[in-house]
Amino acid sequence: MFESAELGHKVDKETYGKEVPLLREALLTTQFDLAEDHSFPVIILVGGVDGAGKGETVNLLNEWMDPRHIQAHAMGEPTQEEKERPPMWRFWRALPPKGKIGIFFGSWYTDPIVDRVTGLTKTTQLNRSVDEINRFEMMLTDEGALIIKFWFHLSKKAQKKRLKALEKDPETRWRVADTDWARFKIYDKFRKWSEHTLRATSTGIAPWIVVEGVNARYRNLTVGKTLLEALRKRLDQKEPVEAVVTAAPFLPRIDKLNVLKSLDMSQNYPKPVYDEELEKFQGRLNQLLRRPRFKKRLSLVVAYEGADAGGKGGNIRRVTAALDARHYRMVPVAAPTEEERAQPYLWRFWRHVPGKGAVTIFDRTWYGRVLVERVEGFCPESDWMRAYSEINDFEEQLVRNNILIVKFWLAISKEEQLRRFKDREKIAFKRFKITEEDWRNREKWDDYEQAVCDMVDRTSTDIAPWTLVEGNNKYYARIKVLKTLCDTIEAAL
Amino acid sequence: MFESAELGHKVDKETYGKEVPLLREALLTTQFDLAEDHSFPVIILVGGVDGAGKGETVNLLNEWMDPRHIQAHAMGEPTQEEKERPPMWRFWRALPPKGKIGIFFGSWYTDPIVDRVTGLTKTTQLNRSVDEINRFEMMLTDEGALIIKFWFHLSKKAQKKRLKALEKDPETRWRVADTDWARFKIYDKFRKWSEHTLRATSTGIAPWIVVEGVNARYRNLTVGKTLLEALRKRLDQKEPVEAVVTAAPFLPRIDKLNVLKSLDMSQNYPKPVYDEELEKFQGRLNQLLRRPRFKKRLSLVVAYEGADAGGKGGNIRRVTAALDARHYRMVPVAAPTEEERAQPYLWRFWRHVPGKGAVTIFDRTWYGRVLVERVEGFCPESDWMRAYSEINDFEEQLVRNNILIVKFWLAISKEEQLRRFKDREKIAFKRFKITEEDWRNREKWDDYEQAVCDMVDRTSTDIAPWTLVEGNNKYYARIKVLKTLCDTIEAAL
Repeated sequence: MFESAELGHKVDKETYGKEVPLLREALLTTQFDLAEDHSFPVIILVGGVDGAGKGETVNLLNEWMDPRHIQAHAMGEPTQEEKERPPMWRFWRALPPKGKIGIFFGSWYTDPIVDRVTGLTKTTQLNRSVDEINRFEMMLTDEGALIIKFWFHLSKKAQKKRLKALEKDPETRWRVADTDWARFKIYDKFRKWSEHTLRATSTGIAPWIVVEGVNARYRNLTVGKTLLEALRKRLDQKEPVEAVVTAAPFLPRIDKLNVLKSLDMSQNYPKPVYDEELEKFQGRLNQLLRRPRFKKRLSLVVAYEGADAGGKGGNIRRVTAALDARHYRMVPVAAPTEEERAQPYLWRFWRHVPGKGAVTIFDRTWYGRVLVERVEGFCPESDWMRAYSEINDFEEQLVRNNILIVKFWLAISKEEQLRRFKDREKIAFKRFKITEEDWRNREKWDDYEQAVCDMVDRTSTDIAPWTLVEGNNKYYARIKVLKTLCDTIEAAL
Repeated sequence: MFESAELGHKVDKETYGKEVPLLREALLTTQFDLAEDHSFPVIILVGGVDGAGKGETVNLLNEWMDPRHIQAHAMGEPTQEEKERPPMWRFWRALPPKGKIGIFFGSWYTDPIVDRVTGLTKTTQLNRSVDEINRFEMMLTDEGALIIKFWFHLSKKAQKKRLKALEKDPETRWRVADTDWARFKIYDKFRKWSEHTLRATSTGIAPWIVVEGVNARYRNLTVGKTLLEALRKRLDQKEPVEAVVTAAPFLPRIDKLNVLKSLDMSQNYPKPVYDEELEKFQGRLNQLLRRPRFKKRLSLVVAYEGADAGGKGGNIRRVTAALDARHYRMVPVAAPTEEERAQPYLWRFWRHVPGKGAVTIFDRTWYGRVLVERVEGFCPESDWMRAYSEINDFEEQLVRNNILIVKFWLAISKEEQLRRFKDREKIAFKRFKITEEDWRNREKWDDYEQAVCDMVDRTSTDIAPWTLVEGNNKYYARIKVLKTLCDTIEAAL
């Protein structure tokens, strides 16, 4: 893997002087085309051996290109805010939008490799990370991103020489820290685990490009030309063809039974019982969220989906009434903003992942892709088909970070919906709640029902199960939601 | 995940009686179309809870369909031959060719799940298997296979009821073994780890279809209709579009240096030294392969690639001269046979993976895809681009099974090749060795050189490194190969 990067590549001054102006101009033009084209983001990862010129190259790229469309991220120690969230959160935050270039100096590879080298983790854990990374990069690619991964390499001898040279020169001495020498001592280990990781993550969609770091001119030309070629190739592509879906279909409907039809919609509470229960569970929920253990270790994500007129709004209000306004955040999910459209689908949800002790309530969620987008044909089949496993990956990352996920589907019968729609039309202050679109959606009742059942089949997991709520009686639905929340938190505490 | 399969689905006799004849006919027609079309294989996996009717359904499918084009594989205890090879070997062997259907009753999921349930493995190991499975299924899909995964489910209550019912009936009593009841006792564990595995392997390309196993008529119709729909959908697809390659390009050639050009081609041995060394290393190799530890635990795969007229033939003969004819196998890789063309690319190499104590020598190898097929355009770019990581996966599986892999590239200079070509034309008994094609290939010298360098960059790994052999002097090349073999085996022993 490193053979080509230990040959002593170099470029003489004259050649370099001739090539650089041409390269810079080509890169600038291409970067401009990328911004104009605005159809995909470019993610550049920079990793490798210390002293191999990673920093210089990143700086040079910044210097060569238009700084308005390129952003470097030095991923050092995570901030407090970042520490409270799943490890990938900080990278999601920093993803470049379509038309822009993001350079990650230190990336999702850094911790897995360093932790293994220092013995903090075992090989199985490293392998786990590797597989998660592969899934993550596959998702990014599926969402259109161009990923370019540079690994700057030095042979052991070259690294030693380089560190010594830097030390000798008074102008560069400051750049050699004690940690650099400490790391040099573990060069062999570092090489071994880097090789292991690079091998397993050099995929067909996002291979590593290993660059010899000894000669700065060689390094710079190599990186510059690779970047240029990758961008040009992608920009010159005709419209991307739609992916072919080869997966087997969902369960056919053999009988009339499904998870929604099996709900007992007759359940209800009389008002006095409801009032009593409401007070009881709201109090309990409030108490549970105040527990020091919750505040220190846990977070809560509540995901609401449901039929039109299913009673989400009123239900959510009964929950928020029990919460401390400083610690919860309500996220109504509407059409994505411009900024959100320029990012991978899940980005708009990742940004709202709560920190420790906090609660986020999503009114409609990341399941939009497999519900409305599927039924209305807003995205190609291949996109929503892969969404199920991407969503499961997402939720698993949250759960592993001690975030409780409670997902509610508020179900009502078709007749009850009709009754509520008509009510809304009659009552003046409710009229804004009913539109032509609601009536149109209603015509697709069966399609939506199928989409919900498929969603439950694919994403109701042990770690993040769906709770189907019988919603014809609003009182019953509210109490069931509150009780489920309390039980889930209690079990976790 | 299992919600839909615990609802008590059933189909009445009358409906069943009406639907089955239609379904059977449709299935038969479709199966015929599949055989005619002959462009993809169908892989059906059947897993799930005991007593959920897995066996009956497999038998039924066999009964309903044309047995000439469908083959069921009961993957029970591995045979001795299978035990000696990597775990995936037996599945590779059983893969259906294009146009056919293979049913795996017990599959690559069985051991990972059962081993975790019985506590033989830890969760990290299960996760590792899961990720390997995902890569494997991705490769199969990329190679065109249609994968349909059925999971037969019973709730705990339903399983108990079913086992009791089987026991009660004298006709079916024999089907309930003690192990079934033993397994029932660990139902919860089994459910937990199955759920875990299904969640992580329900990918966009090969999702699980969970079927409720209680009612036989429901089960049969569900499986039959799913299969029918999946086949029809795939058959009705227009020509598959070529995958878009979005990966970053290889290292650009900045200077004249590369791993081949850096070889010192002047190295050579005078004849007397050669004779002496040859005898020494052949003897040593022979001895090493006779060691009980090698015979019991290790195997050896020798992979030969090289330039035309690079001296492969003579080199290989010097190696085989040292081997016991009963324990080695020589595999000359030529154009694939009809049978091989109907399988995924790596199938033709998997079939020759040696058992314990054995040696397989490949004269040309699985690297053909990234060498000749790439340079000559015999396969689309997306195919050879993904081959690097598929090859690394393949070799890793071998290495983990204690198979030593030694890969040689026999390099000669362009001038030396010309000399040898001319020699061959002059000498009568060598004339058959030189063809028009050799001259044509020679014109693409630079393209081949580039392909070799890229191959080394992507596939020379710590666990299976490439050995580049300076081949201008045949004596030197032969000794280097023999010595490398001896050193590798010695290090492993």
